[in-house]
Amino acid sequence: MTSVFDWLDTRADERRRAGLARQLRPRRPDSDLLDLAGNDYLGLSRDKRVTGAAAAATLRWGAGSTGSRLVTGTIEAHTELEHELAAFCGTQAALVFSSGFTANLGAITALSGKGSAIVTDAYLHASLIDGCRLSRADVAVVAHADPAAAAHALRTRRTERALLVTDSVFSVDGDLAPLPALFEACRATGAALVVDDAHGFGVLGEGGRGAVADAGLSGEPDVVTTLTLSKALGAQGGAVLGPRRVIKHLVDSARSFIFDTGLAPASTAAALAALTVLREEPDLPRRARAAAVSLAERLRAAGLTVTDPAAAVVSVLAPSPEQAVRWAEDCRAAGVWVGCFRPPSVPDQVSRLRLTARADLTPADLDLAVKVITHHAPPGAAS
Amino acid sequence: MTSVFDWLDTRADERRRAGLARQLRPRRPDSDLLDLAGNDYLGLSRDKRVTGAAAAATLRWGAGSTGSRLVTGTIEAHTELEHELAAFCGTQAALVFSSGFTANLGAITALSGKGSAIVTDAYLHASLIDGCRLSRADVAVVAHADPAAAAHALRTRRTERALLVTDSVFSVDGDLAPLPALFEACRATGAALVVDDAHGFGVLGEGGRGAVADAGLSGEPDVVTTLTLSKALGAQGGAVLGPRRVIKHLVDSARSFIFDTGLAPASTAAALAALTVLREEPDLPRRARAAAVSLAERLRAAGLTVTDPAAAVVSVLAPSPEQAVRWAEDCRAAGVWVGCFRPPSVPDQVSRLRLTARADLTPADLDLAVKVITHHAPPGAAS
Repeated sequence: MTSVFDWLDTRADERRRAGLARQLRPRRPDSDLLDLAGNDYLGLSRDKRVTGAAAAATLRWGAGSTGSRLVTGTIEAHTELEHELAAFCGTQAALVFSSGFTANLGAITALSGKGSAIVTDAYLHASLIDGCRLSRADVAVVAHADPAAAAHALRTRRTERALLVTDSVFSVDGDLAPLPALFEACRATGAALVVDDAHGFGVLGEGGRGAVADAGLSGEPDVVTTLTLSKALGAQGGAVLGPRRVIKHLVDSARSFIFDTGLAPASTAAALAALTVLREEPDLPRRARAAAVSLAERLRAAGLTVTDPAAAVVSVLAPSPEQAVRWAEDCRAAGVWVGCFRPPSVPDQVSRLRLTARADLTPADLDLAVKVITHHAPPGAAS
Repeated sequence: MTSVFDWLDTRADERRRAGLARQLRPRRPDSDLLDLAGNDYLGLSRDKRVTGAAAAATLRWGAGSTGSRLVTGTIEAHTELEHELAAFCGTQAALVFSSGFTANLGAITALSGKGSAIVTDAYLHASLIDGCRLSRADVAVVAHADPAAAAHALRTRRTERALLVTDSVFSVDGDLAPLPALFEACRATGAALVVDDAHGFGVLGEGGRGAVADAGLSGEPDVVTTLTLSKALGAQGGAVLGPRRVIKHLVDSARSFIFDTGLAPASTAAALAALTVLREEPDLPRRARAAAVSLAERLRAAGLTVTDPAAAVVSVLAPSPEQAVRWAEDCRAAGVWVGCFRPPSVPDQVSRLRLTARADLTPADLDLAVKVITHHAPPGAAS
């Protein structure tokens, strides 16, 4: 026998002792839990217009795209989705990836590289961090949501080319990046702004056009937006939106685009159908936001420490990882499914419950959520 | 106006002059081109048993998985697919990712890291290279398919932990890695072997169990296999297979698993249905291989420079990128769709046509392919 992987057992023990072991728990289709854990912000993942389009596309095109996007993996629905995303958000062009993760890797690596600089927010999503690590650029991490720090880092860089990379809505706490001030810092220093709008797109801005559009920045020639098709649009995949020359450059050089199989027909068609629903029902985003604000206000009124939701993510602090896990388990047993975020999924090592609001939450859903979450709060969770 | 992205135009000009500009060309559902470009090796992507399962899963589960695998993004079909993949290939466990690209990133980064070493084949797939770059390990690249060079690099490493990373079937030329000798080098030096079986799984080995199984290595405690669900299984996604403690470790620490949305229900169910078809029709892999061998032999007999296909990929060398593009275009105009691989998608800077065989190619398909490809061969392509 070989002991090559014995070190994995040591790591597993360490995680178990620290309360950081994770377990996959498959959900059932007939679950009657109140879902405050997923990212299906507009409730479109099970919308019949969306699932019907996905099923039809599978039967018409096949289950897979059969190749990389530059070989056989581009179907007409990809092109149509790219046109529609760009038109909806107000950018010149868009490019669909198989996930938001690969979209972020592709955008950052293709637009930076050795001899360029990247300045990032300290609370960046893991996929953006990995994009920066892959880029070989000089990376400077500055304080969270601090445009002055970002401007300083951009001003004092040693390279000509630079990107400022940030989430729009931060995935853990749901707070909003100061996009106008960050854009100003970029413009003043000749840097490009790359914004991951995964949690803003479909939730913020007029009709859900996202945080970048809401800040009036979508059409700027030095702004690039990434987003997911798996949250507000209820499907799977990611996209990069921006100036035409940026998109063209990604087609020619983004490795996570060129060397990955194209997004499946079902997911592509689902995202396209969800975008159509969003156009037809422009009030959905506001309803998701209102549900988040209501949840946050009522939990805070009950004495819990709750973030201000800029979009549909509400974060409730927990005293420890073990208590966060127990709290989430108790909620689940009482019918309410909440996310439990622990290190390394939190930027500040503080564990929390992460709640997500949806456009289709009813007043009774909100009542149940508040009742259950407050009832099971551990000692020390109330401020 | 800002000139931040002016450098992209310079790069685009350089690519145009070098014959390396790329263009996305959407395919139509009713195309009557003979497809020798996709990776749907068993012809299962449009199999009604597969598309029917995908459509049904979408209607039952929704268009998206709605979250990351550790939150709401695991459905029963993921777990079932993981059990079936492991059982089929003879490993203890498996883990499904949203793509083969993210599976490779996750496996390599989680199993290496600072203070460890990675030895890789020089012709590695881009996603494996990016995994190595992300890993912060000491990376040594050795000559293509050279077990002695790999053994030397492993023996002379300065760290205790080490991975040897290789493709099984190399994606460009379709040649096979010397897996038994590479495994021996690992065993002798206390390293783990990580094999990307993207182009071997479903095509090589008994009933399509893949190159790792074919080499008798699937169940070894120091071997990890990655594969895609988007090639022989005709769906989308990727997977990592190996010892239970490895899979458990990935759940706890692979960033491209933890921070990515789970694979869509449609793609998950499609892969599961395709695996069932593969079990029921164990002759499919042999048919795909026989078609590849026939293609290669007949093209070589016509004087072209053609690789020996170990699986279903056949590579035909072209004198230049421009001629490769023209050749592929001419074939397409004559009804035969072949891949055209140019830098940076080729390891040796030599452009080529890349043909893929499928289990459902008819003798008439092969006749047409050979006729068209030889007829349009550029001067200098014949050896």
